[in-house]
Amino acid sequence: MKSGLRILGIDDGPFNKDSDKTTVLVGVLMRLNSYVEGISIETINVDGTDATQKILSMASGRFMEEIDFIMSNGVTFGGFNIMDVNSIHETTGIPVISITRKEPDLDSMFSALKLHFPDYKERTEILKKNSVNKIEYEGKTLYINCSGININDAAHLIKKTTIMGNIPEPVRMAHLIATAIINGESHGKT
Amino acid sequence: MKSGLRILGIDDGPFNKDSDKTTVLVGVLMRLNSYVEGISIETINVDGTDATQKILSMASGRFMEEIDFIMSNGVTFGGFNIMDVNSIHETTGIPVISITRKEPDLDSMFSALKLHFPDYKERTEILKKNSVNKIEYEGKTLYINCSGININDAAHLIKKTTIMGNIPEPVRMAHLIATAIINGESHGKT
Repeated sequence: MKSGLRILGIDDGPFNKDSDKTTVLVGVLMRLNSYVEGISIETINVDGTDATQKILSMASGRFMEEIDFIMSNGVTFGGFNIMDVNSIHETTGIPVISITRKEPDLDSMFSALKLHFPDYKERTEILKKNSVNKIEYEGKTLYINCSGININDAAHLIKKTTIMGNIPEPVRMAHLIATAIINGESHGKT
Repeated sequence: MKSGLRILGIDDGPFNKDSDKTTVLVGVLMRLNSYVEGISIETINVDGTDATQKILSMASGRFMEEIDFIMSNGVTFGGFNIMDVNSIHETTGIPVISITRKEPDLDSMFSALKLHFPDYKERTEILKKNSVNKIEYEGKTLYINCSGININDAAHLIKKTTIMGNIPEPVRMAHLIATAIINGESHGKT
């Protein structure tokens, strides 16, 4: 695997679901060796439907030709603003890997969508296109779903880009930056 | 030199001097091996006098006991908001190293301060406490001024934390983040 390969790591900022209408979505363009080459910051609507579009926007422009993989922390940002993993892969041609440490409870999500969103059918449809796979390595468990890359290659890439804990560096950096933008400070040690 | 040593790298965001009253000041807490442990984001006034206070604020709280060195991109942020290198070292006990790629033109700065700021005497006083030293290594030239650390140790630390170009990683990361917050995107390749 070439160390020149570049990953766009994506995560959202925290938000207060009662008072915040928006939060940030941060993309960090990082090489396999953890060298950061670029950062992109978008605003997304809490419980909105613009996450997919904003990620496509990040992947265009100056970053476009440089991204070999997209990695994200889960598929929901700013509450229930769902990223369409398959559509992003189909539109950009870039393999997409979404990672969570906890097993996603899709049934609960379907119920919540039905209860709170008039457009729950469209949102449910996007979620249903995902297939969640459990991977285990070095005593760590992760749930991933991906498009344009097989599970084994995705697992290899995750291992290759994880330094501490079980979150790959591009996603961890996006998380640190997004949290600091909203809270003024973020701290990576747990 | 222990790889566990931590540096707080500091840089400001861009701003429009005609229309922006504030910009951001970003601190990145990084280990010698480039692993980012924390990010702190403050707002500073363009041409204000609060940079020193905001850096002291970053260095307190959760970050306080973990910072072994502070490194900054120059001593002026948000225009003429001058960081008092000596005062920060004296207050925190942490060695401070300020780095610029271009030789600071102190005489021009003194003239500009006198022309535009009623409190130019105080601002000039802070600048005058700085002593700028030229260092050269591997064909690179940098101008540094430091407090609480000698030039040789500062140069060693700069070399140790520079991966590409001539800006140490903690300061480069702070620059990338600050630029992305203001412009929506930043790109580290030049």
